[in-house]
Amino acid sequence: MRRLINELCKLPSVGEKSASRLAYHLISTAETDARALADAIGEARDKIRLCRRCFALSESELCAICLDQSRLHSTVCVVEKPADVLAIERSGRFRGGYHVLHGLWSPIRGITPEQTKIVDLLERLRRSAHPNAVEQSLSDETANEKIEELIVATSTTVEGDATALYIANAARELGVEVSRIAQGLPKGGELEYADEVTLSHALDGRRQL
Amino acid sequence: MRRLINELCKLPSVGEKSASRLAYHLISTAETDARALADAIGEARDKIRLCRRCFALSESELCAICLDQSRLHSTVCVVEKPADVLAIERSGRFRGGYHVLHGLWSPIRGITPEQTKIVDLLERLRRSAHPNAVEQSLSDETANEKIEELIVATSTTVEGDATALYIANAARELGVEVSRIAQGLPKGGELEYADEVTLSHALDGRRQL
Repeated sequence: MRRLINELCKLPSVGEKSASRLAYHLISTAETDARALADAIGEARDKIRLCRRCFALSESELCAICLDQSRLHSTVCVVEKPADVLAIERSGRFRGGYHVLHGLWSPIRGITPEQTKIVDLLERLRRSAHPNAVEQSLSDETANEKIEELIVATSTTVEGDATALYIANAARELGVEVSRIAQGLPKGGELEYADEVTLSHALDGRRQL
Repeated sequence: MRRLINELCKLPSVGEKSASRLAYHLISTAETDARALADAIGEARDKIRLCRRCFALSESELCAICLDQSRLHSTVCVVEKPADVLAIERSGRFRGGYHVLHGLWSPIRGITPEQTKIVDLLERLRRSAHPNAVEQSLSDETANEKIEELIVATSTTVEGDATALYIANAARELGVEVSRIAQGLPKGGELEYADEVTLSHALDGRRQL
């Protein structure tokens, strides 16, 4: 029991108290339910890996989005975390492919582009720009993409902005158009409570009505 | 004392408790300080009125911003409340004139454009588009403006959006360009926690890097 509580404690936003409540629930619930949870955890760890092309979570070599032929794979949305893919999919506004960076460039925290999938993105762009210059070690589906536009959808933090500029500089040389998601007032935002930086961005990025 | 506390209670975010704390402070502080506050309140009410042109708070017939010749008065930023003028001035990103609506169009709350300064804005635009068609009842400084662009900076709420569209439709007929401040992720915004509507706007409004 102690061991179970300890393990539950390691979950995000689960403290000692909720951990023991969860543990007692798992003990007293039907055995099948508890086993089903245990199996699901094990199975997820066994089956879920990173998509070889976009590094989103996937159960196969390429993820469902990369394999979806109805999507416009010439536009690639660059995000920081796998959870961000879900956030953008929820918005229903994007029908292209993704690239998950698994980190942002952060000189201040000593994180280099090499420690993230930024280098893999640049490699992916290079492969797309010069399909024959690189040896075809990857299967056709991965090698044959033609990326024309990147939408950098990293968070609007210092690190998100720095990463966006780093990618934009590299991509421009390869003839790929790079844009950044809009910064401005969020839905329901009141002007009076908005900070100065957000307001400047909102004014700069105004759109014709 | 009871009367003072009652009056203080009417202030925004001042409850019974803070009101009596404020009242005791005003009683026990130096008499000059208390009188200075009372005078300042009275003076403000006597002197502050609405600018005749833009309806921002002003001490004279025209406010300091309307009188500032160094600003570009061909661009007018439309806001809901006088406090919003301050918010945008703080951002330091805007050097044009303003128009304060003192309310938003809200069919659901039964507020018509006529109950706000929206009609005054349209009148102002009409005067600017056809300076001779309207009798010159106003002094020259007010009559002689030439508005070319409106930036609607109302809040990104249903009412703010409705008001923006209402103004845009009317202004277009007068040949005035109308834009809306950008909606998107605020400064420091994390993708994972952004709502769907904000994310769609952020994707739609992406800007080239």
